[in-house]
Amino acid sequence: VTTEQKPAAISKSRLEFLFDGVFAIAMTLLVLELRIPELTARHSTHELAHALTEQTSTFFSYVLSFIVLGLLWYRHNHQYPQFRRITGGMVILHFVQLATAAFFPFCAALFGRYPFNPLSGVIYVACILTYGWASLGNWIVAERSGSLEAEITPAEFKRTRNRLFVRCLALTGMLGFYLVKVLVQ
Amino acid sequence: VTTEQKPAAISKSRLEFLFDGVFAIAMTLLVLELRIPELTARHSTHELAHALTEQTSTFFSYVLSFIVLGLLWYRHNHQYPQFRRITGGMVILHFVQLATAAFFPFCAALFGRYPFNPLSGVIYVACILTYGWASLGNWIVAERSGSLEAEITPAEFKRTRNRLFVRCLALTGMLGFYLVKVLVQ
Amino acid sequence: VTTEQKPAAISKSRLEFLFDGVFAIAMTLLVLELRIPELTARHSTHELAHALTEQTSTFFSYVLSFIVLGLLWYRHNHQYPQFRRITGGMVILHFVQLATAAFFPFCAALFGRYPFNPLSGVIYVACILTYGWASLGNWIVAERSGSLEAEITPAEFKRTRNRLFVRCLALTGMLGFYLVKVLVQ
Amino acid sequence: VTTEQKPAAISKSRLEFLFDGVFAIAMTLLVLELRIPELTARHSTHELAHALTEQTSTFFSYVLSFIVLGLLWYRHNHQYPQFRRITGGMVILHFVQLATAAFFPFCAALFGRYPFNPLSGVIYVACILTYGWASLGNWIVAERSGSLEAEITPAEFKRTRNRLFVRCLALTGMLGFYLVKVLVQ
Repeated sequence: VTTEQKPAAISKSRLEFLFDGVFAIAMTLLVLELRIPELTARHSTHELAHALTEQTSTFFSYVLSFIVLGLLWYRHNHQYPQFRRITGGMVILHFVQLATAAFFPFCAALFGRYPFNPLSGVIYVACILTYGWASLGNWIVAERSGSLEAEITPAEFKRTRNRLFVRCLALTGMLGFYLVKVLVQ
Repeated sequence: VTTEQKPAAISKSRLEFLFDGVFAIAMTLLVLELRIPELTARHSTHELAHALTEQTSTFFSYVLSFIVLGLLWYRHNHQYPQFRRITGGMVILHFVQLATAAFFPFCAALFGRYPFNPLSGVIYVACILTYGWASLGNWIVAERSGSLEAEITPAEFKRTRNRLFVRCLALTGMLGFYLVKVLVQ
Repeated sequence: VTTEQKPAAISKSRLEFLFDGVFAIAMTLLVLELRIPELTARHSTHELAHALTEQTSTFFSYVLSFIVLGLLWYRHNHQYPQFRRITGGMVILHFVQLATAAFFPFCAALFGRYPFNPLSGVIYVACILTYGWASLGNWIVAERSGSLEAEITPAEFKRTRNRLFVRCLALTGMLGFYLVKVLVQ
Repeated sequence: VTTEQKPAAISKSRLEFLFDGVFAIAMTLLVLELRIPELTARHSTHELAHALTEQTSTFFSYVLSFIVLGLLWYRHNHQYPQFRRITGGMVILHFVQLATAAFFPFCAALFGRYPFNPLSGVIYVACILTYGWASLGNWIVAERSGSLEAEITPAEFKRTRNRLFVRCLALTGMLGFYLVKVLVQ
């Protein structure tokens, strides 16, 4: 495969813009799962505190999910400048990443509501894992179509690929752990 | 019609920005239609799995609608750089496109909830079709007002116009199919 | 007041960005007021059509409000490039504009639900009017603080100011009409 | 610590973009807490007025929270250009700022619903305070890692640091006031 075969399918800056927009919105929609409790005694701090502690796991899921989305966004910041252009296949893989990021508030809400239900864990981890495989796929497709920046050596490409692969394996392990818990229930 | 008659009505980059923003938000709002189920046995994977499968068609509509919005956005990426400037008529047509894109989460939610109700299909397809006609209109208005990039030949203009027209016809056919189903009910 | 007294309070491009973001989100949130109806016969197009027609005024309000937000955004596109810099007072007036634009989905939902309740009309028009006065204020403050682009002549400044003023008067008239209807009820 | 030790962890413009996006969305989500009342007499302005006045504190919280988010955003506009680059630690502190800004609509809704419940006040102020400490932390970390713009003198650095510190102290005082009210209840 030579470098010139596949043309850029899309403007790099516009895809980056859509990407950042979807992440900003997904991060901010996480908060919608937190409910304002209905109090009978409106001034009672005890009743409000009690009602809020019932949502403890949702608060925890909010923080965890914000960190997850932040990490994914942060890593995309490192990966994206290494792409010289975006081919058609890479657009599709980016849309898989966007679809999972936009889907993540649902996973976060489900995990926050049912943290000890193994199926919530399966869905939560599977969403991140799908994102991860798409990210790894982007890296491999970019190299095969000659879309990586010229200064990236084959050794650097492999190092990054292996790092992404190990992360996907770790997530697959976590997914397996939750799947086993589902099956033994 | 000479090229200089109609001035640019708006900054190209700001309209692009608004366009990308509306699409990013519409894509992310799709997820709000998915409901966190209420479980009686919070740890039961069977009950959660059962509750989620009741939303199967909503999940399917989420994926389908994400692909539709992605495709529309992707094609706008190809069309937009071919406009040399944006005239007043093109601003109006772009707002029709934006209004249908922003309306799409409602169509997606309706289609996800009632996938076998032909009226849901009518509304879903009519929304995409309205977007399609506005997109075709943009292309024709741009040519008539001399707002296409200079390097686009008349033959290229016609090829693209015909392609857009065929797509609108295909969607009109789908709409007719659903309308017949509504009428025969 | 000389041109050099007041420094720019803020980056023009970042305020424009925030402005466009708030408008894109407000436009897209309008759709959240449309409700997916609960059907007893899930496949019945008659029941779905009947349930949707109960929301006719909300659909109408959606379209009207999208046009209003589109018009306000479009006019800001013409006004903003005429500002050479943004002073502190102009930042405050822009935040009034942003607060009313972000508040507009509530007005649109209220007007859609109770279109024949004069108080809905009062709130709807008052929201646009507040935006209008802030926009007029921006224009006047920009001139007084020497923040208009140098090529704008005093005659042009006055023409635009008077045009904005007439629009605010027209909206004030509409507000008065609704207020009278509230009072005579 | 020399200036060259820590490399930039992230593109300045992309972090700014995410920041502005999250703020635009948080500002616009504030409106979702306002509820469209259910009226029995749909045309009655008295009933609508009465129903809306029941949400007075939510309206007040909307305005207050818009001003708070506007102020935080405005100050970030002044702080951010003084950073020459963004280090890893500064990315983390920015994510703390983003998480609190995205969390703010929940605090605003809680404060609007239960304005006289001291615990609402605690949560509202604590959210702003966390943002404030992260902002102060950014300033200090930027100086220590040599990431401030070269023209900022040590005296200027200290003046800004002390101003941020005083603001955090004032917020801590407010938090203490509310905490005392919680404890004496």
